Amino acid sequence: MRKPIAEFIGTFTLVLFGCGSAVIAGPQVGATTVGVLGIAFAFGLAIVAMAYAIGPVSGCHVNPAVSLGALIAGRMSVGDFVSYVVAQLAGAIVGALVLFLIMKGKASGWEGGMGTNGWGAGYLGEYNTVSAFLFETVATFIFLVVILGVTHKIALNHFAGLAIGLTLVMIHIVGINVTGVSVNPARSIGPALFVGGQAVAQLWLFIIAPFLGAALAGLLFRSGVLYGRES
Amino acid sequence: MRKPIAEFIGTFTLVLFGCGSAVIAGPQVGATTVGVLGIAFAFGLAIVAMAYAIGPVSGCHVNPAVSLGALIAGRMSVGDFVSYVVAQLAGAIVGALVLFLIMKGKASGWEGGMGTNGWGAGYLGEYNTVSAFLFETVATFIFLVVILGVTHKIALNHFAGLAIGLTLVMIHIVGINVTGVSVNPARSIGPALFVGGQAVAQLWLFIIAPFLGAALAGLLFRSGVLYGRES
Amino acid sequence: MRKPIAEFIGTFTLVLFGCGSAVIAGPQVGATTVGVLGIAFAFGLAIVAMAYAIGPVSGCHVNPAVSLGALIAGRMSVGDFVSYVVAQLAGAIVGALVLFLIMKGKASGWEGGMGTNGWGAGYLGEYNTVSAFLFETVATFIFLVVILGVTHKIALNHFAGLAIGLTLVMIHIVGINVTGVSVNPARSIGPALFVGGQAVAQLWLFIIAPFLGAALAGLLFRSGVLYGRES
Amino acid sequence: MRKPIAEFIGTFTLVLFGCGSAVIAGPQVGATTVGVLGIAFAFGLAIVAMAYAIGPVSGCHVNPAVSLGALIAGRMSVGDFVSYVVAQLAGAIVGALVLFLIMKGKASGWEGGMGTNGWGAGYLGEYNTVSAFLFETVATFIFLVVILGVTHKIALNHFAGLAIGLTLVMIHIVGINVTGVSVNPARSIGPALFVGGQAVAQLWLFIIAPFLGAALAGLLFRSGVLYGRES
Repeated sequence: MRKPIAEFIGTFTLVLFGCGSAVIAGPQVGATTVGVLGIAFAFGLAIVAMAYAIGPVSGCHVNPAVSLGALIAGRMSVGDFVSYVVAQLAGAIVGALVLFLIMKGKASGWEGGMGTNGWGAGYLGEYNTVSAFLFETVATFIFLVVILGVTHKIALNHFAGLAIGLTLVMIHIVGINVTGVSVNPARSIGPALFVGGQAVAQLWLFIIAPFLGAALAGLLFRSGVLYGRES
Repeated sequence: MRKPIAEFIGTFTLVLFGCGSAVIAGPQVGATTVGVLGIAFAFGLAIVAMAYAIGPVSGCHVNPAVSLGALIAGRMSVGDFVSYVVAQLAGAIVGALVLFLIMKGKASGWEGGMGTNGWGAGYLGEYNTVSAFLFETVATFIFLVVILGVTHKIALNHFAGLAIGLTLVMIHIVGINVTGVSVNPARSIGPALFVGGQAVAQLWLFIIAPFLGAALAGLLFRSGVLYGRES
Repeated sequence: MRKPIAEFIGTFTLVLFGCGSAVIAGPQVGATTVGVLGIAFAFGLAIVAMAYAIGPVSGCHVNPAVSLGALIAGRMSVGDFVSYVVAQLAGAIVGALVLFLIMKGKASGWEGGMGTNGWGAGYLGEYNTVSAFLFETVATFIFLVVILGVTHKIALNHFAGLAIGLTLVMIHIVGINVTGVSVNPARSIGPALFVGGQAVAQLWLFIIAPFLGAALAGLLFRSGVLYGRES
Repeated sequence: MRKPIAEFIGTFTLVLFGCGSAVIAGPQVGATTVGVLGIAFAFGLAIVAMAYAIGPVSGCHVNPAVSLGALIAGRMSVGDFVSYVVAQLAGAIVGALVLFLIMKGKASGWEGGMGTNGWGAGYLGEYNTVSAFLFETVATFIFLVVILGVTHKIALNHFAGLAIGLTLVMIHIVGINVTGVSVNPARSIGPALFVGGQAVAQLWLFIIAPFLGAALAGLLFRSGVLYGRES
């Protein structure tokens, strides 16, 4: 049970602090905002934190798309994949719940947002479905190339946590205006359950596109085209 | 005496530069503010700095809650715990004193703030007591999970200072609007002594909640549920 | 083919996320901007990401000027140089293409920019040709001194990716107002092809100046004046 | 001659990019500012860059106060100290010269600043002489504690460059409003020579206070009170 517990804690932390930064300290709060750059760092540093905290236990996937990529690359069993994803979803939901409880205690000014992903009219930069799908797929693909590359057996994997977390900072710097950045179905599902409506209606993209990008990266590594063949 | 001297220097630095960033370069100073993100980095990088400077001597707790977590996890003696906490409180108070002296030399515009923690009406995002308590407890718990995990004997502990410091950046990005972020009783007590009033009246939360979160993390590690049992 | 594939992916990522940050999240988008500092981090963290993802395969040059410096320092064959540069240009163009496709899906407000480099009247800080040339040459020289130094056989090269990426952050913090920062002909050529006009007319500087700075650094290392002679 | 050449390049880079960030991208440039946080990162990342680029050659002091601390701690000969300081001053002056030449090519809006240090009426937060002296002394002391600690033979010195650079980020976040942050006589002298007037008249503090702070740190390490006695 150590691995699912670790994945639960990791995904809990990612959602509470990542989405929490957007809700508690996003541009809407005025002079005490951390800005979009601060939100990008919150998500990325959550991965850095968890990579070094729980990485030695579970590998710190904290993301069903990462687990899918690892499965396809041949680094993970199907049984582990299922238990990881269940733990990640549970962690994301409980993380969103704690964020919800904290926000209930705000005397004024909470407009009900939970850092949900989205696109289209009324959502940040108002990009269309094609742009959103393209961004999420490509960003998840690149994210997985970093993850599978830096944890490859010939790589310098002591730096994995830092490199992967800083990659997520980079992805958020670019993509928050497009989709709010998912690249992680669990991160999208947790907050959406507390908001409903369009956030739930748009969840399909934040499941399909990250899984697609991750699968492509998994195949790239399994094929041995970039690194040597996985063994 | 080397360990208490190291803890004194470390906590002194955390308070002078962490709280100093809020007082000297916080949003109130206008165009030359570092913003809330800058304050978050000041606190976190103070931990990075001290982890590599004094870590080899004392382990760089610089926080009574961290020492309590280490005590409960079975990594520290009661005698060391007491001497660490005394040194941390002394360092925090002297750090706040130096900040106070620097601020006395500001020709205009110092409103008397010292970067104290708080919550409720008139304090930043105006969150209530439950939100403040919940945030401080959960944030300290996660902080300690990172600290106890990354310094676990099976972990990559050369990265500990960086991972722990960046975790504190993440916590501040989210929590400054809620409580100003303590997760550290010494960091709250030092500046509060120079301000008095509500800052002192609200100190109880910044002692109890961090100790509670740290104790829970200490028990998690002692139990062996997440990592192997501590020996 | 592994090395050119790696260089293609790396330069693709640098252009898509580096230039993408400027186009998607630059100061023009208002409250959801990442600011110039965010753009600087996007470029630098793209290098960190790729250094750990593809560095073990190709060394992660992702920049014809870096490859030229390595060639002159005697660390690379002419054949590899040619295949690297071709792959870098292809990656930069495809990266710019994906960015272009994402931007086509923005309902409103895209003014057509692609993060191209430039100088003179109407370009950011409006520096003249001499300033632009001087900045690009010196910045590329320093960039290459870091790259060739940190990957020197007596150096701590596990940190190379981080050090090089953070150097690029530093260069962008300073230089975005001067030239938008190239120090990399591929990064300039990719987006310019989608914009044309002045962006193409000014490409010569972003080819000559980076190559000049890189060549000077390559000679410095080949000479053995700074480090021991390359063998 | 390798060590002085390395120190020249390092101090050149620190002044050109550190002071350059303030002059080229400081708050005065409007929407394309990097902000005070960006300036803090420019100075700190210049140290990260140079630590990994030239550290294996000279140790990357790039600061007469650091060399003085190393001398007093017994880690450097008097002859090396003199040659280091000469090279650092030369590098700082040439770095300031290149910055001056770049600024001469700005069509409009350069008010003549060079990122000089200062205090008192009209200088940023308008702190008095006592505050400025206290800040510079304490900040240099803490800076040297990090430097001498992380490079101590029992420490994790592969991280030295990163830890020291991030410490300088922290110091700048806090201190830019007080003195612009020197903690380095060479960094103050270089730009002041191009500005004259008050910048030169106030140089005494940015020589005495950093030397005092560094000497105190050197004595702390020589005494063996914090770490074991230097041998």
